[in-house]
Amino acid sequence: MIASIVTIGDEILIGQIIDTNSAWMATQLNLAGVTIREIISVSDTREGILSGLSQASQHADIVLMTGGLGPTKDDITKKVLAEYFGDEMVFDEALWLRIKEMFERRGYETTELHKLQCYMPASVEKLENQMGTAPGMQFEHQGTTYISMPGVPYEMKYIMNTHVLPRLSELTETFVHHRTIMTVGQGESRLSEAIRDIEEGLPEDIKLAYLPSLGKVRIRLSTTEKATSGTQGRMNELSERIAERLSEYVYGYDDIALEKAIGDLCVAGGKTIATGESCTGGLIAHRIVSIPGSSAYFRGGIVAYSNELKQKLLAVSPSTLEAHGAVSEQTVREMADGLLGQTGADLVVTVSGIAGPGGGTEEKPVGTIWLACGDAQQIRTHRLQLSKDRQLNIDYTANVALNMMRKHLTSQREE
Amino acid sequence: MIASIVTIGDEILIGQIIDTNSAWMATQLNLAGVTIREIISVSDTREGILSGLSQASQHADIVLMTGGLGPTKDDITKKVLAEYFGDEMVFDEALWLRIKEMFERRGYETTELHKLQCYMPASVEKLENQMGTAPGMQFEHQGTTYISMPGVPYEMKYIMNTHVLPRLSELTETFVHHRTIMTVGQGESRLSEAIRDIEEGLPEDIKLAYLPSLGKVRIRLSTTEKATSGTQGRMNELSERIAERLSEYVYGYDDIALEKAIGDLCVAGGKTIATGESCTGGLIAHRIVSIPGSSAYFRGGIVAYSNELKQKLLAVSPSTLEAHGAVSEQTVREMADGLLGQTGADLVVTVSGIAGPGGGTEEKPVGTIWLACGDAQQIRTHRLQLSKDRQLNIDYTANVALNMMRKHLTSQREE
Repeated sequence: MIASIVTIGDEILIGQIIDTNSAWMATQLNLAGVTIREIISVSDTREGILSGLSQASQHADIVLMTGGLGPTKDDITKKVLAEYFGDEMVFDEALWLRIKEMFERRGYETTELHKLQCYMPASVEKLENQMGTAPGMQFEHQGTTYISMPGVPYEMKYIMNTHVLPRLSELTETFVHHRTIMTVGQGESRLSEAIRDIEEGLPEDIKLAYLPSLGKVRIRLSTTEKATSGTQGRMNELSERIAERLSEYVYGYDDIALEKAIGDLCVAGGKTIATGESCTGGLIAHRIVSIPGSSAYFRGGIVAYSNELKQKLLAVSPSTLEAHGAVSEQTVREMADGLLGQTGADLVVTVSGIAGPGGGTEEKPVGTIWLACGDAQQIRTHRLQLSKDRQLNIDYTANVALNMMRKHLTSQREE
Repeated sequence: MIASIVTIGDEILIGQIIDTNSAWMATQLNLAGVTIREIISVSDTREGILSGLSQASQHADIVLMTGGLGPTKDDITKKVLAEYFGDEMVFDEALWLRIKEMFERRGYETTELHKLQCYMPASVEKLENQMGTAPGMQFEHQGTTYISMPGVPYEMKYIMNTHVLPRLSELTETFVHHRTIMTVGQGESRLSEAIRDIEEGLPEDIKLAYLPSLGKVRIRLSTTEKATSGTQGRMNELSERIAERLSEYVYGYDDIALEKAIGDLCVAGGKTIATGESCTGGLIAHRIVSIPGSSAYFRGGIVAYSNELKQKLLAVSPSTLEAHGAVSEQTVREMADGLLGQTGADLVVTVSGIAGPGGGTEEKPVGTIWLACGDAQQIRTHRLQLSKDRQLNIDYTANVALNMMRKHLTSQREE
């Protein structure tokens, strides 16, 4: 089964929003055994939508659309779909009653716009949307299924999860097409050299790709559409060989988050952790907390952005700050000692750096970052010299900090 | 000038990465006066790339491609482009010397893959890339310009900033096509009702759109491509009328971040701030710190994830936690008091909630979040009842917390 995705909205074409909807839909469709042929973003004009529709329907069994549905006047997708399918617009009394009831329950009044929203193309099958006022819409036309959903991510996800994916799962036989080995701490070229023989001996129906991103590289094995059931076994075998060869850098499979891998190591080893951040400003803590169940091992974090708080909350000595500065090996080491004392965690990581774009000196240019990671027995430190890009520096540093924790937890497990 | 963007890579079609490159490119091109007709994501196969190329070139003066360039064997874009333009592949000695020199300087050895990477289509104009080994490539073909760049975001950005955008700016006359009014704390329908008369009286050449996202709504005015210089004046006038009408909810214009608006208010009022987080795990602090110069007003934050740390670092009394629980009005209030004392900040915000998916009770279901915000004179509290989606709850709560700070800082300014 082949699908195309059409995202409708000038906000994507002018770069005002990032199209996260397509990525989520593609992941879910893929897991359901559906292949995405292309993702097309078009303007929310009649011409844009018609052009996207005609392109997308060329080679697809199913066309999924998001955007251009909603209570305000830019609700245009519905009208263009009616035109495309030769439908009239009909007032939908049931939808109107549902919206009125929904608003009354919350103590709000409906507006004229909500009423206008209840006109629907005649041949539509509505897909109920508990997260908002605009339902999803399904159409069958010349052997192709068209599904249109609002662009608001949690509304789209509700409709996909409740209606679209269950129907698709019935139609396809699910098959795992991908196996991804997650690595951190080594570059693409060197990883590739290390597994060169494996890569050169790959069977024809298995592809390998490298996806580098801020100190991490995903190595993805994929089967072709015509894969047989034996392919999956060979792919698993290959991925194990690769993971064994690169074991120092591998933290898991299939898009597991680095912070999830750390959580699993904490749970397995019965360890608790804490973070002490300056330039990363809480991102490391936030990433750890984004994992459900992190309260079992994450004690907490201190964002000691000012020198005063570094002294007060992390017991960094004024003489250290005076002699070496806030961005120094000595400071991150004392931050780690202080954090171990304050939180009682088994393992801590601390960071202090100049994220930029301002604040650099000749001795410590923008992008100078110090990290410390360890426990009551031993603390290791590490210096990074990164770019002038603030966001890049913060994101990259968070990956390095998490990897230091991972290495510490892994080495403890091996001891 | 019309452009199309083609992103190449199965990682997008299987949802493994989110296409942030296109959004960034679209923003930059838009500012340079270039209109994006469509964004197409295709597979990194010969067929996928050829299909994307032929679609994209139909109505575009310039086709921008990212992905499928790099040192590993999935480097396919280059070969397909050579085929498309009828070029031979030629070994590029200068590129090879550059890569060797780059690696020697860092004390690394080159690999065989780096040498293979130096074969280029004969008619290419190379676009130097200081951030990586693969240069950008420019081709002229039947009146259309084709530019191919690596998919690694900071490499693509370097090539865009250094080569592509300066050349485009020479060719176009820049004109601001958009004006966006940023609002927080009110829904799309109600905002629309409030400015209905303005919206209905819009001139034909100005469009208005609502872009809702997690408690925020962007209201975007756009001119058509044929806009005259007078349009910009009328658009500014309209945006001021709208902002005045909705003043309670407006925090700025043109995609300013809410945390930047808060930073500006802090600087203007000479105020310092601090954050105390439980379920948001450091996200609020991280967002504040993502703004360059935030060290001038952000004192720091405490991520008191465990009850023990809530007591130790934020002086929440054990009897409060016992009587009301960690997720309660009393707890966030005491967290705020404790944080004011610990950090000496003028204004603090604190959060405690059940982000989910587990941890809910009948009395406090998943999605119950308490917030407190205030200063030494007055602390306001607020309760949210959100969804079962952990990430959504965390992101939404961060917006509400930042909006509470904004409202506090704004009301102080008015006093």
